[in-house]
Amino acid sequence: MCEANAYIYKNGKEELYLESVDIMVPEEGQIYLKNLFGEQKVFVGRIKEISLLKHKIVLENK
Amino acid sequence: MCEANAYIYKNGKEELYLESVDIMVPEEGQIYLKNLFGEQKVFVGRIKEISLLKHKIVLENK
Repeated sequence: MCEANAYIYKNGKEELYLESVDIMVPEEGQIYLKNLFGEQKVFVGRIKEISLLKHKIVLENK
Repeated sequence: MCEANAYIYKNGKEELYLESVDIMVPEEGQIYLKNLFGEQKVFVGRIKEISLLKHKIVLENK
């Protein structure tokens, strides 16, 4: 499977926010995420970096 | 492999912009992309939607 885990970058650390993310839709100042299991979250902040080979999405607060 | 293709959404159509994207880094009003083959591009605009299961990144101009 080709999903990725989303982490929040904070104070030099990465905390798991949502596993197995499928869909991401950035909106005004926030990001809608939905994972393989249908779990949905809205993160207030921005995408810092995505590495698909590492299966990793890094988000951060503004 | 878990890369995705990046498309530009324009006038209801999607045009291929970069194949096999690995890394994406959104910056101020633009997005840095790098693919599996080391090709790098900077797109002026924003991420419209990402679907990892569909291996698809959709970008759009502002």
